[in-house]
Amino acid sequence: MAQSANKKKVLVIGGGFGGVFAAKALERQGRGKLDVELVNANNYFVFQPLLPEVAAASIHSADAVVPLRQLLRRLQVRQAEVMGIDFTKKTVTVVQGARRVPVDLPYDELVIALGTGVDLKRFPGLPEHALTMKDLADAHRLRTHVIGCLEAADVTRDADVKKQLLGFVTVGAGFSGVETVAETRELVSHALKYYPNIHPDEVRFYLIEYADRILPTFPAELAEYATERLEKSGIEVITGIGTKSATGTAVELTDGREIPTSTIVATIGNGPHSLVEALGLDLHWGRIKTDRFMQVPGFDGVWALGDAALIPLVDEPGEDPAHYAPQTAQFAVREGRQLAGNIVARIGGKDPKPFAYTSRGSLASLGMSKAVADVYGIKLSGTLAWLLWRGFYLSFLPGFAAKLRVGVTWLLNSVMPPNIVQIQSAPPSSRYIHYRKGDKVFEPGMLIDGFYTVIKGSYRLTIDNPETGEHFEKAFGPGEHFGERVLVRSALRTGLVVALEDGILLFIAQKDFTRFARAFPVLEEYFKEYIERTFGGADKAFAPGSTDRKSELETLP
Amino acid sequence: MAQSANKKKVLVIGGGFGGVFAAKALERQGRGKLDVELVNANNYFVFQPLLPEVAAASIHSADAVVPLRQLLRRLQVRQAEVMGIDFTKKTVTVVQGARRVPVDLPYDELVIALGTGVDLKRFPGLPEHALTMKDLADAHRLRTHVIGCLEAADVTRDADVKKQLLGFVTVGAGFSGVETVAETRELVSHALKYYPNIHPDEVRFYLIEYADRILPTFPAELAEYATERLEKSGIEVITGIGTKSATGTAVELTDGREIPTSTIVATIGNGPHSLVEALGLDLHWGRIKTDRFMQVPGFDGVWALGDAALIPLVDEPGEDPAHYAPQTAQFAVREGRQLAGNIVARIGGKDPKPFAYTSRGSLASLGMSKAVADVYGIKLSGTLAWLLWRGFYLSFLPGFAAKLRVGVTWLLNSVMPPNIVQIQSAPPSSRYIHYRKGDKVFEPGMLIDGFYTVIKGSYRLTIDNPETGEHFEKAFGPGEHFGERVLVRSALRTGLVVALEDGILLFIAQKDFTRFARAFPVLEEYFKEYIERTFGGADKAFAPGSTDRKSELETLP
Repeated sequence: MAQSANKKKVLVIGGGFGGVFAAKALERQGRGKLDVELVNANNYFVFQPLLPEVAAASIHSADAVVPLRQLLRRLQVRQAEVMGIDFTKKTVTVVQGARRVPVDLPYDELVIALGTGVDLKRFPGLPEHALTMKDLADAHRLRTHVIGCLEAADVTRDADVKKQLLGFVTVGAGFSGVETVAETRELVSHALKYYPNIHPDEVRFYLIEYADRILPTFPAELAEYATERLEKSGIEVITGIGTKSATGTAVELTDGREIPTSTIVATIGNGPHSLVEALGLDLHWGRIKTDRFMQVPGFDGVWALGDAALIPLVDEPGEDPAHYAPQTAQFAVREGRQLAGNIVARIGGKDPKPFAYTSRGSLASLGMSKAVADVYGIKLSGTLAWLLWRGFYLSFLPGFAAKLRVGVTWLLNSVMPPNIVQIQSAPPSSRYIHYRKGDKVFEPGMLIDGFYTVIKGSYRLTIDNPETGEHFEKAFGPGEHFGERVLVRSALRTGLVVALEDGILLFIAQKDFTRFARAFPVLEEYFKEYIERTFGGADKAFAPGSTDRKSELETLP
Repeated sequence: MAQSANKKKVLVIGGGFGGVFAAKALERQGRGKLDVELVNANNYFVFQPLLPEVAAASIHSADAVVPLRQLLRRLQVRQAEVMGIDFTKKTVTVVQGARRVPVDLPYDELVIALGTGVDLKRFPGLPEHALTMKDLADAHRLRTHVIGCLEAADVTRDADVKKQLLGFVTVGAGFSGVETVAETRELVSHALKYYPNIHPDEVRFYLIEYADRILPTFPAELAEYATERLEKSGIEVITGIGTKSATGTAVELTDGREIPTSTIVATIGNGPHSLVEALGLDLHWGRIKTDRFMQVPGFDGVWALGDAALIPLVDEPGEDPAHYAPQTAQFAVREGRQLAGNIVARIGGKDPKPFAYTSRGSLASLGMSKAVADVYGIKLSGTLAWLLWRGFYLSFLPGFAAKLRVGVTWLLNSVMPPNIVQIQSAPPSSRYIHYRKGDKVFEPGMLIDGFYTVIKGSYRLTIDNPETGEHFEKAFGPGEHFGERVLVRSALRTGLVVALEDGILLFIAQKDFTRFARAFPVLEEYFKEYIERTFGGADKAFAPGSTDRKSELETLP
């Protein structure tokens, strides 16, 4: 697709609501005059409002997304990651394809539609232990995780572990938080009949909101109705209290309360997209400041829209958020259309128009065929609102194929048992794990799973040999390590490791750690010496099983 | 679910066709007398015949599987991994749940239905570079990979890379191989219209079969028809030639031919399940030898069936494979029912019956609404066979919900565009990569992605500085490493690394490697010294960016 000499090249970066609707409108309004290309990291558009439905297995993963190439058939679509922008040369650097070589794409007009990122750094442990709800993979992960908790809770004999597994915490009670907690609650309710060892009373759902009520953008009476519905379906709604920190087994609230949980969904912490942050543009509240035409002042041919942009709705905007376009899909779609018109006007030598739009209202599903709606000033709640919610999203979903698929799935699922298939994916091979003082890292009898290095805090290892009565104890601090039994012939932990204070460990999964420690001479020598010195003749089980250690490599040709 | 004192405990390990149908029949025939439990690593049954359809996006991943708890509502289902069996104590050791502590499950009667594993060790590089088609995750991975190849081929500027990306090789032409190549060919055909930079002639499909014809279990005339159909749809069928070795960019055949490819699907190499191999039972052709009643001789209360078992169909079986039940779903289902009857008979003091069954025939889909069928001795090919194929599998799929879902999806997809959504999952963080002499590992300008340790072979690094004219060269052998630039402030490779002979590297992804190298003092010191000594002042870009190196950790609280 060579760029025609007399056509202006418009590059849209980001394939969310803003980017896609801008690109569609550019194609329509600028046909023959513009050469439009959209760049996105994934080859599909995510219909974010339906992600909670994916998490609850109400619809298939693939049905909440639409392939960008099908949605934008007449445009060029490029699956690539944006690395940087040179505003002087007017090029965007992307990395793409099999060889991962950066490529510069020139533009005449650039539309930045990168959306936002998630920033949970203010809450210790939350970045490492919370699930987010931004992308399709997040929704899929949450669903798999929830079913996995039910599977594990059905067989555990440890009451504390069962409590953690059956405690589901959602942080943040905007749309996304409310719909996510409601939908997962519904999934679990329907699934419980297949788990004979879990009593419904053992399952607990929590919705934590720092503000003094849920759904802050809704009228108070609808928020009240929503709270009642959620509580009626067994969700504990906690408002006016924030989240303080998290570990793999609990979340701590600002009032000191600790909730045992292995499932934390964070729908808070909207922050700037990492690239937006690095561009050197004028940001306010983490968003790119534009003029009323959505142009970025001082940068030739640069436009921004959607959640990434701060678009004023009035001529002299101040610090009042109401002076700016809100970060909703509804606004992004309107911005996209208007921005396309402005680009076409500008190229044609005409005047662009300032962005103006008034929200048509909001809808939020509460699960169990109930919803709240505030449309054109009319407030609705209950089943009628829920039907409206479904109808609205179905009509809003781009592409006939997606509409039909989602519609049929909804129909089928109204008469079908819940889909409790747990499609497991491999856990990440290295991760940081937060611990609170007194937490167990592992204990005797557990299957060995990996190697630990201390990042922060101190930990005590205790080994008791019930046969000989021997007792071994050792403390570990930052830079020290334990769990190297993964390197020797042994399947189970013999020691107990407890956190002596709040801290962080770096965990590396057995497979990756042993591969590296065997192939890399520096590590091989170090661990050989370390294991002999530390455990020596004291515990024969620690003796390196040298034939075993090479076994994986020996199977290599 | 406490075990009632006067009920016999029957444990079924494995949730494939054999295990599931045995469990279902045990529940039905032994109600009140038996306490049946099924143990499986996944919480779902995989309908393997439909995996190629999943790979081709013809049906949703979740529709080719059925939750075991829904399929076996009156039984206990346990999601756990089997670690070992103590035939003397009559217990099965499983690892399950959140705490990963092994648990012993007692049994009176044990049904081993573990299926087979994949063993590709005879083909250097194939275990590391081939995709398999055993499980749902495999099918999903193949689909994602194929779409990913199209995305990358659409943007690459390197003719060799494009050739690799558009070469799709399937090894083994039994059912699974034939259906997989046919279905993926269909997916690619339909998808190509969305990839403007790929010409249909650039795409190549290969089906490699060591035997002298495809579909060895079918009558010759049907295999001939199938070959014609496949060739007509653009698949190169290569018979009588085996696969020798593979790398990430090519497969080498036994006749010396090299096919450029980044997609190798291996449907060959059926080997014993790793647990079956470790049990100390009498194996033949990697399968558990049973008597005609499916009992394992010499082991009290132990039965085996399905692909894991070698069940004689005659009283004095010899070395002729026809003397034993073939490894097909059809036989496994019959074996399951018969085995259940035998267990019930044995417990009731009655005589078990020898297993006897004659195949009703076979069906194989060829894509593009064509199939071959050999049913009750009647040979069919073309569209009629394909309709029969669909009808047969639909009726065979257990559970009404699954039938309805698959049926509706098939109907919808007949009028829908292909689903080219590429849901990417994170690549594994460490992996072995095979290279042929002359292969490039990386070259200047590529984005750095990870660290390499030499397992086998030798490699040459060359760095040329175009500004100063400086030239740097170094060779690396086993135990040595390169690519440690991931630790310093730098985004792109500056050197070229080429394999000087055939060899293997261990690759560790940037994220995991840098975390470990920063947290683990032994590595941190080693690399600090190594980078200074090796690159020193010669190349300033190599100087450790010490503030940068800590950045990830510094974001930790």
